[in-house]
Amino acid sequence: MIYLDNNATTKVDEKVLEEMLPYLKDEYANPSSMYDFSRRAHNAIKEARGKIKDFLNAVNEREIIFTSCGSESANMAIKGVLAYNNSKRHIITTKVEHPCVLNTYKEYEKQGYDVDYIGVNNSGELDLEELKTKIRKDTALVSIMWANNETGVIFPIKQVSEIIKSRNPETKFFVDAVQAAGKIPIDVQENGIDMLGISGHKFHAPKGVGALYINSKTSILPLITGGHQERGLRAGTENVPYIAGLGKAAELAAAGLEYEAKEVKRLRDKLEAGILSSVFNARLNTAITNRVPNTTNIGFEYIEGELILLHLSDLGICASSGSACTSGSLEPSHVLRAMGTPFTSLHGSIRWSLSKFTTEKEIDYVLEKLPVVIEKLNKISPFQKELEHLKACKGGGK
Amino acid sequence: MIYLDNNATTKVDEKVLEEMLPYLKDEYANPSSMYDFSRRAHNAIKEARGKIKDFLNAVNEREIIFTSCGSESANMAIKGVLAYNNSKRHIITTKVEHPCVLNTYKEYEKQGYDVDYIGVNNSGELDLEELKTKIRKDTALVSIMWANNETGVIFPIKQVSEIIKSRNPETKFFVDAVQAAGKIPIDVQENGIDMLGISGHKFHAPKGVGALYINSKTSILPLITGGHQERGLRAGTENVPYIAGLGKAAELAAAGLEYEAKEVKRLRDKLEAGILSSVFNARLNTAITNRVPNTTNIGFEYIEGELILLHLSDLGICASSGSACTSGSLEPSHVLRAMGTPFTSLHGSIRWSLSKFTTEKEIDYVLEKLPVVIEKLNKISPFQKELEHLKACKGGGK
Repeated sequence: MIYLDNNATTKVDEKVLEEMLPYLKDEYANPSSMYDFSRRAHNAIKEARGKIKDFLNAVNEREIIFTSCGSESANMAIKGVLAYNNSKRHIITTKVEHPCVLNTYKEYEKQGYDVDYIGVNNSGELDLEELKTKIRKDTALVSIMWANNETGVIFPIKQVSEIIKSRNPETKFFVDAVQAAGKIPIDVQENGIDMLGISGHKFHAPKGVGALYINSKTSILPLITGGHQERGLRAGTENVPYIAGLGKAAELAAAGLEYEAKEVKRLRDKLEAGILSSVFNARLNTAITNRVPNTTNIGFEYIEGELILLHLSDLGICASSGSACTSGSLEPSHVLRAMGTPFTSLHGSIRWSLSKFTTEKEIDYVLEKLPVVIEKLNKISPFQKELEHLKACKGGGK
Repeated sequence: MIYLDNNATTKVDEKVLEEMLPYLKDEYANPSSMYDFSRRAHNAIKEARGKIKDFLNAVNEREIIFTSCGSESANMAIKGVLAYNNSKRHIITTKVEHPCVLNTYKEYEKQGYDVDYIGVNNSGELDLEELKTKIRKDTALVSIMWANNETGVIFPIKQVSEIIKSRNPETKFFVDAVQAAGKIPIDVQENGIDMLGISGHKFHAPKGVGALYINSKTSILPLITGGHQERGLRAGTENVPYIAGLGKAAELAAAGLEYEAKEVKRLRDKLEAGILSSVFNARLNTAITNRVPNTTNIGFEYIEGELILLHLSDLGICASSGSACTSGSLEPSHVLRAMGTPFTSLHGSIRWSLSKFTTEKEIDYVLEKLPVVIEKLNKISPFQKELEHLKACKGGGK
């Protein structure tokens, strides 16, 4: 099996699993308990919190709250800050956010909030000029993702933060860094971020654990009320095994950033260039620059993405036509639509996302098999005339 | 080590861990993905949902929503139903609920909701007469736990439901069954329950997974918005390993109910009777009947609970002075206070909670060591006169 859907989820690193196992076996104490037996569970959380602090370059461990996933982190940040400052009724995000931000904003819109959705250009890059005009006195919150899950496009978070804070220093800035963590360096201080969310299963920790960074200047109300856990900001007995795993995964991710930037990028670039040169109706949906190293989004004009995925699946190749969180719906990607991707490739766009476990052999296999699949699908496309025309224009492909 | 704090958390059953491991290793697909590889992860969730449905005797698998813990289940139920029916502003609970319900209710009280907290008698039993008088036309929700975490006292859920529904059929009824699941049979249909929450780590699944039952007549708004997971009611990539583990744990728990009722109860009764007969200043804080089989709460008059726990910890015995979720605070238990437990034993009360892994040898060891510990602490108690008096009245213990 060749897994090229690492933006959907990743394999748990063996070292992460190793770190977790004691807490799934004999070290099962509730970390809040008073006796000696709970000390190791308690310390495991403390240690993991330190590792996440380092991973994000937070000032203080107290700024890290463990959650059950990236969606919870985003919900906690957005709802928490708006519940705390409920007099300001204007909020901003982008048109290309993950559903956990976008759908949460839509709920606030229904509740009467004034919401601005900032657009992107054809390459998927954020319209900073539009952002500049939207920030107001009553803007409570701006939520902007660090890297897009479907295209891999990186937003200029430091610039965004400067734009926000120069116009309204009281506006809070939440960054969904779920697709950036483990792929590019994250520094919350350097980038002027108030709150930032990550999800473990996107960087080789298991599904079901995340974290929210909240700087000391930002107050929120909890989403899950109850016990005193996480300084009263997130009730519920701590998921000790996964928290320990998240810490380990962050440590490994930090150490692996150079490999991502060089080797993962090299393989991604090879895959991308190979597809673009060997498939005449392939079209890169983004610019080549400003992307995380592991992702490429390629449209195959005049054919159906779902059909491509099915054929790939038969060959043991896993890729995706959008985010897993929106799959199941047959609507084309809201991200590609926001980018103005032409309808000819909108329905036939495939996201390929690599990881540190991706090998050159796997990429070679895809480059060998994919053109055959596409040629087969081209033949049954209802757009034969258009395909002929395209082929002629591009010199017939390779 | 002798672990008698199974109401705080439990050891993960080896069979549960076995069930989880494939999804922490090779079967790591995102269950929402389109390719073949995701089918097993997808099916694991489906299968677990069926097992939880059976465990609770729900009508339909669609009534089961997976969450990250019991606290999330309670928050989701309470906040979800109140957000959906936001015109009714009266809610009812008890004085002895877990903090995840009690503190959530206190938030609604702050927001202007009218809240009634039903009391209990000296044995910890619910005041049904009080409940009858409190249900109104605008009562949106009643939240009542099935079994108390500190005392093990079981509330008559079926009677409660009949009282509620006969007075206001539109009032929703949420049951926190976190401390009942795995200890006594749970049947949501038989007991007229609208919503019910459970937590995996209280019955040998790991910490960080729970479920919420919501019957088809009850509508809620989601707590965590985003992707389409869990029918749009709980966003976030599913924690496949833990969900599979929860299903297995429920299956094992259902099969083990007879053992709980007989053998765990026998050992609990032996421990309880042994302590009460060998320690003159020991006092059972509840009635003997109407309790889950694994729990006893015993006050040691005129001495400090924290000191007892410390000495027990040195002997390798884990017990608790209240719920882990409230530990850290030095205030005496809100549950025992609500019961009117006399101040003489309020500060020296210890919860002992057994599990299927508790052995007779362990109980014998505690019965051998505890009286020595208490005698030592009695000697340094500032209440020497009172202890002398008590000893004389009780005939000097054993």
